[in-house]
Amino acid sequence: MLQTMQWTGSALRLLDQTKLPTKIEYIDITDEKQMWDAIKRLVVRGAPAIGVAAAFGTYLGVRDTPELTELTPRLDEVCAYLKTSRPTAVNLAWAVDRIHHHATLHPKHYATPDRLLDIIKKRIFDECLAMLDEDKRSNRAIGEHGVELLKSVRANSPINILTHCNAGALAATAYGMSLAPIYVGMEQGMRFHVWADETRPLLQGSRLTALELHENNVPVTVLCDNMAASVMSARKVDAVIVGADRIAANGDVANKIGTLGVAILARHFKVPFFVAAPTSTIDLATKSGNDIPIEFRDGREISHGYGGAQTAPDGVETFNPAFDVTPAELVDAIITNKGVIRAPYDANLKKVLT
Amino acid sequence: MLQTMQWTGSALRLLDQTKLPTKIEYIDITDEKQMWDAIKRLVVRGAPAIGVAAAFGTYLGVRDTPELTELTPRLDEVCAYLKTSRPTAVNLAWAVDRIHHHATLHPKHYATPDRLLDIIKKRIFDECLAMLDEDKRSNRAIGEHGVELLKSVRANSPINILTHCNAGALAATAYGMSLAPIYVGMEQGMRFHVWADETRPLLQGSRLTALELHENNVPVTVLCDNMAASVMSARKVDAVIVGADRIAANGDVANKIGTLGVAILARHFKVPFFVAAPTSTIDLATKSGNDIPIEFRDGREISHGYGGAQTAPDGVETFNPAFDVTPAELVDAIITNKGVIRAPYDANLKKVLT
Repeated sequence: MLQTMQWTGSALRLLDQTKLPTKIEYIDITDEKQMWDAIKRLVVRGAPAIGVAAAFGTYLGVRDTPELTELTPRLDEVCAYLKTSRPTAVNLAWAVDRIHHHATLHPKHYATPDRLLDIIKKRIFDECLAMLDEDKRSNRAIGEHGVELLKSVRANSPINILTHCNAGALAATAYGMSLAPIYVGMEQGMRFHVWADETRPLLQGSRLTALELHENNVPVTVLCDNMAASVMSARKVDAVIVGADRIAANGDVANKIGTLGVAILARHFKVPFFVAAPTSTIDLATKSGNDIPIEFRDGREISHGYGGAQTAPDGVETFNPAFDVTPAELVDAIITNKGVIRAPYDANLKKVLT
Repeated sequence: MLQTMQWTGSALRLLDQTKLPTKIEYIDITDEKQMWDAIKRLVVRGAPAIGVAAAFGTYLGVRDTPELTELTPRLDEVCAYLKTSRPTAVNLAWAVDRIHHHATLHPKHYATPDRLLDIIKKRIFDECLAMLDEDKRSNRAIGEHGVELLKSVRANSPINILTHCNAGALAATAYGMSLAPIYVGMEQGMRFHVWADETRPLLQGSRLTALELHENNVPVTVLCDNMAASVMSARKVDAVIVGADRIAANGDVANKIGTLGVAILARHFKVPFFVAAPTSTIDLATKSGNDIPIEFRDGREISHGYGGAQTAPDGVETFNPAFDVTPAELVDAIITNKGVIRAPYDANLKKVLT
């Protein structure tokens, strides 16, 4: 399986996802500015992957700090900076805050300032590794809970899943979220077929989801986003599974633009609509989807196709939100690493976090 | 306004729509093979435009026939051949059949075979010109009926219209269908704003709809197909208007892939969903949408982006239907050149054709 990230001993090596599916290239990230840029440019993307990468970004940002007295101000600065790279995914802020909390909550060691500086730096680094490991275990757990849910939807193989964007291995550190039930199910001898929405404008579905499924021998068919209604209408979809960038306290889900449309189609055709996400994606501080900031991106992503060909006339306005919000009532279940959550979400999301 | 086609005296000059929006180039079509190719490659596209172009294709195919005895077999051959260029649009078959009918239903003139040959050729040509003229008048009538319908939806300017694909001037010979009410409304001093779905895979929305609206000073915003739910959810759409490639006797509508999804979203958000088409698009011989043949196109339209960049991995399956069918119950009204038709469609479509 392609690995999104790996610690080299001195840098975080990221798979450059902007080059997929035609080139497999890696970039070694050695400071927080490079990390900010990598997150912004979607070299690394997907909420859990961004979270772990940002955590390493904080470490890279402070590892060369020479004095203990400079460490906390430097960490404050690096954390605030990294959070500005992408506003919608809550995992990014969650991961950065977790590192910050961990680094500043240290006991007063009886050690020299230099020694203490090293201890804190090491603690930050160890926390990064712990988060990487946790995400891998979380991916596996989502897969195990998800596959049981899929068995309840359809007893016979192959199960036809439609997914939007990429919330698979390439969005995380191991099996991913939306595709994890498929990978775990394959290990159990189940068979699947996946409809991958290409996911304009950046085509994460055709570039990334199709790539990772194809590499892992899962039959996959790429379709344009506007063809999903057609395959659902033909009864060729047993379930939809998507990821999430942020889940509000009431169960509203922010995810890649187009998710809302897929959810409405699924409800219309009575196809179950599932969201797969680690519990770190749940943000109880955000009451509802109305409170989630939506990132708007450069309109050239729309007007200049993919690969640069101009596809809209000069001077025409574009509208390019990166995310939309699917209201909780359209979500049949949320598959997390701690189990499957169903409505009422306000009560049940709180429960799973305590 | 950009003209899709024009008779030069010896050829049908077509605006090459595959080159838009960055290049305005014309191709002179001088025989039926070139016409077949132009229709297949979408140099000319849009149901009414294809119909008129195909009619000229029959003329170009028979104009050099030297003997009267060869004319009917030649016409049979050319008509059958042109019909194979695209299977879904009924106007193509309708137009070709109309020419065929007209040419073969001639009275037995008291004239020499050579003279009769010329008479029939001229009759075919005159019928082409008549069809061109009829389409222009039909476009205008659709606009006039449509603008009254829009006034009933929203009294205040600007009216926000969402459209999918291009059923505007570039799909016909004058004002078009879905955009005709806007052009007529502008002449009456009304104001509009149009959300143009880009319409993957061939981007007729961003390449063509955005171009013609922008050229005609109508504010237009291009969005990816998967963003339509977002703008409807934000209550920024007053009505949806799309075209049609074929309307079945029960009111089911075949139109550009993605139309079904838009119709479902419109119903979900209680936005009126209108279809605009000339009555030649109504095919009473087709009972329901199930009986409409759907054209599947080359998967490279999906896997190789627009402009050729590879956007899906090698060896991955694609699904590329050019059309889908929107069931009649999702269509709030059909705007035709003979007035606005509402449910029950089976009765009312029959009525408008008699």
